[in-house]
Amino acid sequence: MMRWAGAFVLLLWIVAPAHADPLAAWNEGPAKQAILDFVSDVTREDSPDFVPPAERIAVFDNDGTLWSEQPLYVQLAFALDRVRALSASHPEWQQQEPFKSVLAGDLEGVKATGVKGIVELVAASHANTTTEEFDGIVRAWLETARHPVYRRPYTELVYQPMLELLDYLRANGFKTYIVSGGGVAFMRPWTEGVYRIPPEQVIGSRIKMRFEAGKSQPVILRLPEIDFIDDKEGKPVAIEAIIGRRPIAAFGNSDGDFQMLEGTTAGKGRRFAFFVHHDDGERESAYDRHSSVGKLDRGLNEAAERGWLIVSMKNDWAQIFPPAQ
Amino acid sequence: MMRWAGAFVLLLWIVAPAHADPLAAWNEGPAKQAILDFVSDVTREDSPDFVPPAERIAVFDNDGTLWSEQPLYVQLAFALDRVRALSASHPEWQQQEPFKSVLAGDLEGVKATGVKGIVELVAASHANTTTEEFDGIVRAWLETARHPVYRRPYTELVYQPMLELLDYLRANGFKTYIVSGGGVAFMRPWTEGVYRIPPEQVIGSRIKMRFEAGKSQPVILRLPEIDFIDDKEGKPVAIEAIIGRRPIAAFGNSDGDFQMLEGTTAGKGRRFAFFVHHDDGERESAYDRHSSVGKLDRGLNEAAERGWLIVSMKNDWAQIFPPAQ
Repeated sequence: MMRWAGAFVLLLWIVAPAHADPLAAWNEGPAKQAILDFVSDVTREDSPDFVPPAERIAVFDNDGTLWSEQPLYVQLAFALDRVRALSASHPEWQQQEPFKSVLAGDLEGVKATGVKGIVELVAASHANTTTEEFDGIVRAWLETARHPVYRRPYTELVYQPMLELLDYLRANGFKTYIVSGGGVAFMRPWTEGVYRIPPEQVIGSRIKMRFEAGKSQPVILRLPEIDFIDDKEGKPVAIEAIIGRRPIAAFGNSDGDFQMLEGTTAGKGRRFAFFVHHDDGERESAYDRHSSVGKLDRGLNEAAERGWLIVSMKNDWAQIFPPAQ
Repeated sequence: MMRWAGAFVLLLWIVAPAHADPLAAWNEGPAKQAILDFVSDVTREDSPDFVPPAERIAVFDNDGTLWSEQPLYVQLAFALDRVRALSASHPEWQQQEPFKSVLAGDLEGVKATGVKGIVELVAASHANTTTEEFDGIVRAWLETARHPVYRRPYTELVYQPMLELLDYLRANGFKTYIVSGGGVAFMRPWTEGVYRIPPEQVIGSRIKMRFEAGKSQPVILRLPEIDFIDDKEGKPVAIEAIIGRRPIAAFGNSDGDFQMLEGTTAGKGRRFAFFVHHDDGERESAYDRHSSVGKLDRGLNEAAERGWLIVSMKNDWAQIFPPAQ
């Protein structure tokens, strides 16, 4: 009996990998094949394009690339909810923009307050707490907040094909990073659980902070002042400042990711980059050149000549979101 | 024969670990024992202080903690050499401070130019190149530069006990980071080879950078402007901004590291921290409370009450530097 059992286990072990498709949510086609080819090229030791594991850095935008960003950025939904939650102790907000518009549910009114309004919104919703308090605020919000259209927790509205790509790259020795225009402190509380990306591999926009050691335990305070915007030219600069080496693969969905793809693919040797194209109005949202969120215009124009792929959500993805939990 | 050979190999494998002391350059005593106890406490799964591997973050200052900082910071030696190398194409420097003093070998004169002078020195020696050019400049300098006293390459003047501590922590599942007041771009070219710390685990001071995509390949330019000083309160802030979680161990040698140790040990659960005390004038240098480089005063006063160790180079270290190569 033991011998048979052993042989059976061995058989399973041999057969299983051939059956398990690590990119099952990707339709067969040029996009999926390009991923497989790239990974094979940089990981086979006899390949002319072989890259040692330590240099296998892959960077991913977050909003619109790893999770949904429509009808509005998740972080903006958080900020609006946070202002509503705090409004009871700020009666003056009823008369004061941008809070007045937020409380009236008037998003156009919020937009009309411009950069000044957005900065005040960020300050009110993201600052004047310790780092640990803010972490708790984000976690608590995510537990109850639901997407206005899909009525599911935001952390379930991540793209199944991209989760598979993250896993597939890591299984092949890659270190996966998020490089997002979103706030780093808003992402870190959940990226490890959802994407298996630890806090130290999350790069994003930041507000200023101050270390304060009083009589009690020292804390780090979040200040109402922008420190760094991790978008456009900021992305390759943040990658240099924080990672300190050039990635070999970069993935985005909007023109805000253009320079990250440009910097990544400018390196010598085999490189890989694509834009996720939101062209699936049926299963998600269709938007690109004229969208105020996730605008993709220059990227569509120049991808082909630069050797970057355009991944069609409609054609290349067999599945958009993971099944509801 | 095969059976005997196999048994012999097995025997070696069983016996060897008992003989190899991972901290051989540490004298037996309370400091070495404290390291062993800490690592045992946080890694044994049945320990009340067990910490999962992902959270085993240890941060190390560099100058004076991992390598020698006397008679002057290595990076300052680099800056002075760089100004000398560039002076042929800058005849005006002969009459212009701080360059005039640099070229005359008058360090006191350089100091007298104050912050303005230092900023100009950093700009002239560290900026106005691409990131890749600067990497090459640092590597080339390290190949030929020699320490003025020991006459050895600077990268050999690292502390053997600290190299062992780095290795020992990593062997126990720790992720080791440098968090230094020194420039991050000056450290990254050699930290992987010398400390086995990859670029993405090196945090330091930074100058501003700009991504520039012209007609040719895009580059990142190093600008003559300070972006961030990673010293004192800056250290725990940089740790939060870049790592995003609190380390469980921190090691420094000067009051510039005080807040890093303070922030680290303020966390819940088992923590570990020490200052390297430069008290060995015979084998290295003896300096602390009154030194302009690596001043350790408040640290000496408060270490005991805060539960931080003072590691005596004289008494706790059997060896200072690795043997000459």
